Amino acid sequence: MDYQYEQAVEILRRTPATLTALLRGLPAVWTTSTAGPDTWSTYDIVGHLLHGDETDWIARARIILEHDERRPFDSFNRTAMFEKYQGSSLDELLAAFAQARANNLATLSELRITPEQLTRTGAHPALGTVTLSQLLATWVVHDLNHIGQVVEVMSRQYAEAVGPWRAYLAILTRPILTE
Amino acid sequence: MDYQYEQAVEILRRTPATLTALLRGLPAVWTTSTAGPDTWSTYDIVGHLLHGDETDWIARARIILEHDERRPFDSFNRTAMFEKYQGSSLDELLAAFAQARANNLATLSELRITPEQLTRTGAHPALGTVTLSQLLATWVVHDLNHIGQVVEVMSRQYAEAVGPWRAYLAILTRPILTE
Repeated sequence: MDYQYEQAVEILRRTPATLTALLRGLPAVWTTSTAGPDTWSTYDIVGHLLHGDETDWIARARIILEHDERRPFDSFNRTAMFEKYQGSSLDELLAAFAQARANNLATLSELRITPEQLTRTGAHPALGTVTLSQLLATWVVHDLNHIGQVVEVMSRQYAEAVGPWRAYLAILTRPILTE
Repeated sequence: MDYQYEQAVEILRRTPATLTALLRGLPAVWTTSTAGPDTWSTYDIVGHLLHGDETDWIARARIILEHDERRPFDSFNRTAMFEKYQGSSLDELLAAFAQARANNLATLSELRITPEQLTRTGAHPALGTVTLSQLLATWVVHDLNHIGQVVEVMSRQYAEAVGPWRAYLAILTRPILTE
């Protein structure tokens, strides 16, 4: 289906509450473990989401609305959270993410983007020409992708503990989600 | 890591709240769509989780504790929800799942399973010999697997809408989760 503001916001506004319900107060054994080298822990993933809301999605929407493709997007540092939030607890990152998301959705509402504006284009540093509607749909899928990554990395802590049931649990055996 | 009661319960008790935060009141366009033939919608997945809590996990734990392998598990009907909950709304299934899970965790606590009991074995109709600790670890991973499946099937509704970003979003392109 096509991107549509009201439907997208229904997901975007639920993501912080979903992650908070799943993660707040959870023992560190679940939240700081990775699924192997070059994979992210749940703590890392929440920091990545927060950094995106602090620096990327709305900034890119504004660039399209103000400059179209004449001003390419800044590239997004996928791993900025490793330094940026050092010393913050997971519960602090969850609270900051909820606040940043609420602010961004208020901004998105104020922008009152028209159907015509949704077709306007920006210049992605690697992907080339993208539309505003593609950017906003990607914001939604990016949230869902990282919720999926959170449950995946947590599940891997029990990869051996499930014994023969491993054969039925694709979450334990598929290539791990990234990005 | 090994199955451990306190750590497992921290996940098991959060699953209903997580799904409720993500799904309650969400428009049907997100919750009743599948990702193609033979895939489940979010509505179907919540029904599957409810059916498991109503009929399977605790029942199998009791079979191990009372009969070991002498009494094989009943097989679990993975698709019972299609008929069993016909006419129920998603919000009703979420509420029923929260109640069933709370009841099951109260029962699990009352069972006061000892480390020795965790090593006792049952007979799975397809997988053969499994231990009680494997059963309980699988309950946890099964929850995480289906949360992952929910976000995956929802993400697929925007598979085209994201345009070129598809290349960065593995959740859109991997073989879909099942079970």
